[in-house]
Amino acid sequence: MQKDKILEILKKYKNGSISDDDVFAYIKDLPYEDISFARIDHHREMRWGFPEVIFCQGKTPDQVSKIAEKIIEKGSNLLATRASREVYDAVKINLPDAEYNETGKTITQAVKKITKLKGGVIIVTAGTSDIPAATEAFETGKILGLDISMICDVGVAGIHRVMNHREDLEKAAIVIVFAGMEGALASVIAGLISSPVIAVPTSVGYGASFNGLAPLLGMLNTCVPGVAVMNIDNGFGAAFLAFKILNTLKNIK
Amino acid sequence: MQKDKILEILKKYKNGSISDDDVFAYIKDLPYEDISFARIDHHREMRWGFPEVIFCQGKTPDQVSKIAEKIIEKGSNLLATRASREVYDAVKINLPDAEYNETGKTITQAVKKITKLKGGVIIVTAGTSDIPAATEAFETGKILGLDISMICDVGVAGIHRVMNHREDLEKAAIVIVFAGMEGALASVIAGLISSPVIAVPTSVGYGASFNGLAPLLGMLNTCVPGVAVMNIDNGFGAAFLAFKILNTLKNIK
Amino acid sequence: MQKDKILEILKKYKNGSISDDDVFAYIKDLPYEDISFARIDHHREMRWGFPEVIFCQGKTPDQVSKIAEKIIEKGSNLLATRASREVYDAVKINLPDAEYNETGKTITQAVKKITKLKGGVIIVTAGTSDIPAATEAFETGKILGLDISMICDVGVAGIHRVMNHREDLEKAAIVIVFAGMEGALASVIAGLISSPVIAVPTSVGYGASFNGLAPLLGMLNTCVPGVAVMNIDNGFGAAFLAFKILNTLKNIK
Amino acid sequence: MQKDKILEILKKYKNGSISDDDVFAYIKDLPYEDISFARIDHHREMRWGFPEVIFCQGKTPDQVSKIAEKIIEKGSNLLATRASREVYDAVKINLPDAEYNETGKTITQAVKKITKLKGGVIIVTAGTSDIPAATEAFETGKILGLDISMICDVGVAGIHRVMNHREDLEKAAIVIVFAGMEGALASVIAGLISSPVIAVPTSVGYGASFNGLAPLLGMLNTCVPGVAVMNIDNGFGAAFLAFKILNTLKNIK
Amino acid sequence: MQKDKILEILKKYKNGSISDDDVFAYIKDLPYEDISFARIDHHREMRWGFPEVIFCQGKTPDQVSKIAEKIIEKGSNLLATRASREVYDAVKINLPDAEYNETGKTITQAVKKITKLKGGVIIVTAGTSDIPAATEAFETGKILGLDISMICDVGVAGIHRVMNHREDLEKAAIVIVFAGMEGALASVIAGLISSPVIAVPTSVGYGASFNGLAPLLGMLNTCVPGVAVMNIDNGFGAAFLAFKILNTLKNIK
Amino acid sequence: MQKDKILEILKKYKNGSISDDDVFAYIKDLPYEDISFARIDHHREMRWGFPEVIFCQGKTPDQVSKIAEKIIEKGSNLLATRASREVYDAVKINLPDAEYNETGKTITQAVKKITKLKGGVIIVTAGTSDIPAATEAFETGKILGLDISMICDVGVAGIHRVMNHREDLEKAAIVIVFAGMEGALASVIAGLISSPVIAVPTSVGYGASFNGLAPLLGMLNTCVPGVAVMNIDNGFGAAFLAFKILNTLKNIK
Amino acid sequence: MQKDKILEILKKYKNGSISDDDVFAYIKDLPYEDISFARIDHHREMRWGFPEVIFCQGKTPDQVSKIAEKIIEKGSNLLATRASREVYDAVKINLPDAEYNETGKTITQAVKKITKLKGGVIIVTAGTSDIPAATEAFETGKILGLDISMICDVGVAGIHRVMNHREDLEKAAIVIVFAGMEGALASVIAGLISSPVIAVPTSVGYGASFNGLAPLLGMLNTCVPGVAVMNIDNGFGAAFLAFKILNTLKNIK
Amino acid sequence: MQKDKILEILKKYKNGSISDDDVFAYIKDLPYEDISFARIDHHREMRWGFPEVIFCQGKTPDQVSKIAEKIIEKGSNLLATRASREVYDAVKINLPDAEYNETGKTITQAVKKITKLKGGVIIVTAGTSDIPAATEAFETGKILGLDISMICDVGVAGIHRVMNHREDLEKAAIVIVFAGMEGALASVIAGLISSPVIAVPTSVGYGASFNGLAPLLGMLNTCVPGVAVMNIDNGFGAAFLAFKILNTLKNIK
Repeated sequence: MQKDKILEILKKYKNGSISDDDVFAYIKDLPYEDISFARIDHHREMRWGFPEVIFCQGKTPDQVSKIAEKIIEKGSNLLATRASREVYDAVKINLPDAEYNETGKTITQAVKKITKLKGGVIIVTAGTSDIPAATEAFETGKILGLDISMICDVGVAGIHRVMNHREDLEKAAIVIVFAGMEGALASVIAGLISSPVIAVPTSVGYGASFNGLAPLLGMLNTCVPGVAVMNIDNGFGAAFLAFKILNTLKNIK
Repeated sequence: MQKDKILEILKKYKNGSISDDDVFAYIKDLPYEDISFARIDHHREMRWGFPEVIFCQGKTPDQVSKIAEKIIEKGSNLLATRASREVYDAVKINLPDAEYNETGKTITQAVKKITKLKGGVIIVTAGTSDIPAATEAFETGKILGLDISMICDVGVAGIHRVMNHREDLEKAAIVIVFAGMEGALASVIAGLISSPVIAVPTSVGYGASFNGLAPLLGMLNTCVPGVAVMNIDNGFGAAFLAFKILNTLKNIK
Repeated sequence: MQKDKILEILKKYKNGSISDDDVFAYIKDLPYEDISFARIDHHREMRWGFPEVIFCQGKTPDQVSKIAEKIIEKGSNLLATRASREVYDAVKINLPDAEYNETGKTITQAVKKITKLKGGVIIVTAGTSDIPAATEAFETGKILGLDISMICDVGVAGIHRVMNHREDLEKAAIVIVFAGMEGALASVIAGLISSPVIAVPTSVGYGASFNGLAPLLGMLNTCVPGVAVMNIDNGFGAAFLAFKILNTLKNIK
Repeated sequence: MQKDKILEILKKYKNGSISDDDVFAYIKDLPYEDISFARIDHHREMRWGFPEVIFCQGKTPDQVSKIAEKIIEKGSNLLATRASREVYDAVKINLPDAEYNETGKTITQAVKKITKLKGGVIIVTAGTSDIPAATEAFETGKILGLDISMICDVGVAGIHRVMNHREDLEKAAIVIVFAGMEGALASVIAGLISSPVIAVPTSVGYGASFNGLAPLLGMLNTCVPGVAVMNIDNGFGAAFLAFKILNTLKNIK
Repeated sequence: MQKDKILEILKKYKNGSISDDDVFAYIKDLPYEDISFARIDHHREMRWGFPEVIFCQGKTPDQVSKIAEKIIEKGSNLLATRASREVYDAVKINLPDAEYNETGKTITQAVKKITKLKGGVIIVTAGTSDIPAATEAFETGKILGLDISMICDVGVAGIHRVMNHREDLEKAAIVIVFAGMEGALASVIAGLISSPVIAVPTSVGYGASFNGLAPLLGMLNTCVPGVAVMNIDNGFGAAFLAFKILNTLKNIK
Repeated sequence: MQKDKILEILKKYKNGSISDDDVFAYIKDLPYEDISFARIDHHREMRWGFPEVIFCQGKTPDQVSKIAEKIIEKGSNLLATRASREVYDAVKINLPDAEYNETGKTITQAVKKITKLKGGVIIVTAGTSDIPAATEAFETGKILGLDISMICDVGVAGIHRVMNHREDLEKAAIVIVFAGMEGALASVIAGLISSPVIAVPTSVGYGASFNGLAPLLGMLNTCVPGVAVMNIDNGFGAAFLAFKILNTLKNIK
Repeated sequence: MQKDKILEILKKYKNGSISDDDVFAYIKDLPYEDISFARIDHHREMRWGFPEVIFCQGKTPDQVSKIAEKIIEKGSNLLATRASREVYDAVKINLPDAEYNETGKTITQAVKKITKLKGGVIIVTAGTSDIPAATEAFETGKILGLDISMICDVGVAGIHRVMNHREDLEKAAIVIVFAGMEGALASVIAGLISSPVIAVPTSVGYGASFNGLAPLLGMLNTCVPGVAVMNIDNGFGAAFLAFKILNTLKNIK
Repeated sequence: MQKDKILEILKKYKNGSISDDDVFAYIKDLPYEDISFARIDHHREMRWGFPEVIFCQGKTPDQVSKIAEKIIEKGSNLLATRASREVYDAVKINLPDAEYNETGKTITQAVKKITKLKGGVIIVTAGTSDIPAATEAFETGKILGLDISMICDVGVAGIHRVMNHREDLEKAAIVIVFAGMEGALASVIAGLISSPVIAVPTSVGYGASFNGLAPLLGMLNTCVPGVAVMNIDNGFGAAFLAFKILNTLKNIK
């Protein structure tokens, strides 16, 4: 953990092996690093347990590549989302070990050991077309240390498909549901189990889905209390919420 | 049926017992009757099998009362929807046998025998709060001759509640589903049975329901093919569609 | 019918020619088949009278091709909607008899006899630009066994065009209306006839159509009671609703 | 006409009977009169052929009363719209001859002769519930000198009702259509006749009308070219447009 | 005029030179001609004074080409809107005299004399970017016989630009205003002149214009009474409304 | 716990003291109880750890009163939300120990011991006007056994107010943020701490809040990953999600 | 100024007349004061130059009264907005000198001298109905020390009305424009003058204004660069922005 | 300044060296110059202190090129926004010294000395993806003479990043904040400092950002009074508002 590094510096300062100025410079530098167009928030690892994640949309391949290098240089694990293949091509020049997931549009590289978190997380998709967003969640979950798995294409049109997985779902600590169209799968699963459900509307559907507005409203209005709703197609956010829940909760005695 | 009356007149004309002018006057008068602020479309009974229905919203009690009287005078059955008690009080002065349903806000009076239609129609509500709109459908169905019944409060939060009624639902010719919040019940039921489902979004729910927009979009985007969607809270329209389906289909050999 | 196959197995079990485990394995396998990214709901044929339909949008050509093969293997008829030519090219490698409709973007292949359903279904389009969505309905109707036909370009700007078809429309069991712009044709036709009307808004129009929102709202708000509204451009859903109505109703005595 | 008064002053100036300063003062005073909270645009009569109309919504009864008096004092005719009875009660204290139309919520008083404009204007309403907005148009038309009449409750649910008036509609110079719900009547009438149609959406309807948004979008998207669309429930604006058309056109040779 | 042709036929029938069947065949054929995918409404010329106009969006080049030929064959003038160059290339193969306006995306060909209509029509654009939609109106106006002209780029940011044209605008029978962004120019011009203003919102602007929603709402809410609003970018409709006004009004004495 | 009761019955069955029919009757009755207008889902306690909660909106005082009694009769704890004082007056006739929270509009009565859950839950409100929705969450949390507390009026306009509570917030297991206006407080707090944040938009604000749409969109779009969003003003749902998280997580080793 | 008080304390600390603990306690107490349901941000006066303003909507009369007292106790000037008369009645019990503006719904009390700011600020309203929102700005401006005045009812329907004030407007440092309907006045004034314009959309208008959405979009899309847009009806915010501009700018040399 | 040129002409006229007609011609020509498709508003420099700026979107490269030349010919400085590289290529043929900023899509050329304005303006972006819109503001600011600088990627996810710049922000005369997603950075910064904040929502974000609607509503609803909101991605407008504020304010004594 980044925390260990910091404590090491502080102890050196306490026993006099580094000066006031040095310790101050180190700490001031810690939170983020300015690379002119981006300020990498290395501090984030201390605050949240994971370093800054690169949201590639709207950034040039070159910008992503530079931010990625800085993250790896600091010894943190890398996660970039919404990465086109062109972005990946730029990143792998300097980071040849970075891996690309074509379906989920993620780039990952683990340079330090991933701490495994207890509590199974199951990703469920209503249809085959929801798989890209779900894969973003899956890849995010893996690098964050979640014990994560995926069940695809069990939408409510054939409700026995989800009923067959009821036992597994009941054992999960958290279930993440991806659904486009009317998004009813989130309500159905949340009604069946007692664990928290994270609902992600997807932009899959006919015209009046309005690019995911229909399932978004559906999930926000679910008749089952206690469903956590995410932005449209935001697989990354869903996995991160699962991580935050399991990471925080492990400290509660 | 109104049709018999017309044929009778036409036969009288054929055998010479009434004149050209008389037959013309009769037919011309048939379609609608002008009472200055409203044109009652008596012709509708011939076209659709039921006379004009009074939509009371935006009409004064006095206007509704006058239209109602004209309908009864012509020997047709009366149905008025969205009727406040104040409207009913005005109507019953001249039509003391008219009945009022407080929950469904309907006024009905049957002056001629209601022809029963084959094929069971089941109304299902997701919650207790959907009952007013469902009652509008129920009252409409009764005066239109439907073999109609109602199952309340079986929303997807406790999916076993609807599963327990599966057998009944499978036997129905048509199922009408009323649901607010996310409206998922329509998809779930349509997925279970082979009969057509008519889905009515209701304006029941928390803020982001936006007065029924959420279940409306949900139902339009259902992943189960072949769900007929109605306007928000439109119980009358749903029952009328069921009537049209069963009324038309009885003639197909 | 799939049902015959199942009963055959069950009878073998009854007379002892297959074991407990075999019959269980067969039945458990029946509902859907897991091909990792998709669970084909073969059970659907029993529940709804038609097997799973492939919605190609958001799926790769390879995924569609594999699902299509599995459906044909099980001896069911194939229908795929929203299929690009690229998808069709992938499908026909293994299913050379599959047919493609360029306008309607459908792929179909009938490997078993289509049961014809009584009751004429007429598709009506307001304009020439509504034909693609209408063709999706037409192709869907054909493989589902509907007695279906199509009348194009009879929008309300020249109302005599629709009036000339009044007699045909009155004889139809169900009329499906496709209209973009303001979508008024659905109300006009529903006002003229007694059969149920299924209304499909299309995304055809000038700016303030907002990709079909204008006719969608128009159709939901029709002043003619009993119009079944579909999602924007959803020709498939409209034909499927017609199928469900005629399929269910044939059993009502 | 106000114009005569102005020319009279100017001629007096020309022949020397009033000074430079006097003529300037008169003209400068003309355009509008400041009564602290409102600037009455008396100039409007010269520009548009009718003086300022009072839009009562958001104004106190006292404010309306003061503006009304000033208008009558200048010798112009009075029209106030969206006037509650409370507003009218305040106005008639000083203007006992002002008349109130309860349905249309208008106050009118004609103190000078209304110049009649050639060309019949017909107001058509789809339903009885559209009558309040239509009456605002009717009262506006009368005080502006239109040759105006009204046909109510001829919506497209019973299209023969409007067909029966076809001959009258064809003779009209301008037809103003009021319709709520889906607003289809505007398209149907515009398709039948060659005169310009002014379409006014009303806020009448079930939930998904969204207070008139549905017919507004419907009318803007009409498939019949050349329909002039107004704001929701804006009867006043529709009559004023008819006035502008007929008033301007009378000068074209 | 088409009318002359029809009367000629009818007179022949009266004097016996053609039979019952012939006259019936002719008249029945008149209203529209079925070319399978489109029903050309030749009747429209009688009803509205101009034949059917081809809206090319959503039609194939081949479909447009065939409809265009039929129109020219009947001796009517041709107008096609929203035509891409590809569509024009298909049309000119058989109609080499058809003309294409690249900016306005219109195809026109006049095969019979255009009747000039009295009353000047001025098109005004707020900015240079509004010119494409305005050109659609200009080309439409020309073939419809309007005395039409165009003033560009006089938006309210520099209000003196429009003030300099005030005199011309005051003389116009009708002014058509094209404006994107906030659409204020329509209100400003309508406030200055007494003639009717037709307002066309355009889809020009920054993000919160929402493709023309901002000026559309602005124009519908104008504080100047009597502004006729059109659909977004609908130049054709605006010119057609001007035509209908001037064409109808010429018959009022 | 309800579970103990069920096991007791099952053991009696095992040792033969009750019959097959009795045990079946008991279990079948368990899931829900039909009181004609409502089906109380007593089963819910087994599935989710808390019995059905009454959403009073749209229900009559009498209906709520009857459902409440049934819940107490079964020995479960009572929670009713969105309860007006009139509803409470009806409930307390038969349940005199039920308590009413005027601000949060909740009715509660605990008839069995509430199991305390570990992990502090802090409710934070951006303004004083958010307190009603926050109180609904607070009351819900108390009866569900949460260790819950509340910090009010620390919106981002004075960010030092929230900074002063940073230490407390960092120690919490879950933080629930209520904010209207732009809803920025959710992002700010989620950025500061590592625990999961549940964000509830409220309908507090000036016009362009559109009854909570602004903070809803803001929270869904938060730049801080892992924020769980609720429906507008849904305090109940937020507390229930916190309960589900802490209740499930206690079982993970 | 509050600043003087703080410096006084700090100087006492420097010269040793108060202890470390005392100075810390004083400063810690400064920022805000906790009165359980509200945290008054007294610090705000130091940061922004004016103490916390009470937004009364959603607060009880009692809550407002207590917050108001605390503000006056601290020696700051009081401003409360969106105050009903009922709220004012509660406030004046303890603060008898507080003044109420019925039109603007503001409560004000100045207990210390208001520092006058240089630079004229002119409020302009398009119509009489915009006066309530404008008065909120006027009252806010007065207590903030602005040199503020108001010109009412000069909307673009009669553009000469605003032209007559051009000279005054050109001399103003800042102009605040209130307009409902289409909101065009903001563009017109911003086009005429070089000073910054603050535009406030109001909820005044016919149906398609959608409670101020129309002028809000209009103002955001203005073709005149550099217009600052406020929330709907937010007079307070507009005056506060003017204050911030003039207060900050006075320090620029 | 353009003003000097005009006064020179007027003095020549006064001392008789040019005639009445000449001076009139010159002045009349001043306001704008007609180049058929565009009217360049040279007058704007006198009114606003800067000449017309070219908004390239919707204009052809050729049109932009011609307008640009006219502006340079008149001796004014050139600014063109939303310019594609293709547009720039057309412009530089005749204006080889024009400079292009690829990120901000601006073309600039300064042919006369830029007057520097006092008061620092700081541009702040929430993320790296907001840089394009921010650069449009930066380039606009430079040519308008602002003392402008830029701080990137300090969004609220890591609030210490913005806190570290607090001192600089407090010294700025004006801060312009660019933020997509939820746009919270505007509120946070406005809460920290006393200077006016100009907030620009950007179209950066996941699905439910709806192309910038989320941060737009967020910024309009900010709980910090006195934030000036711009259209989505409108960097140019933000810098122009800063210019207007500083330019006007320099004249206030």
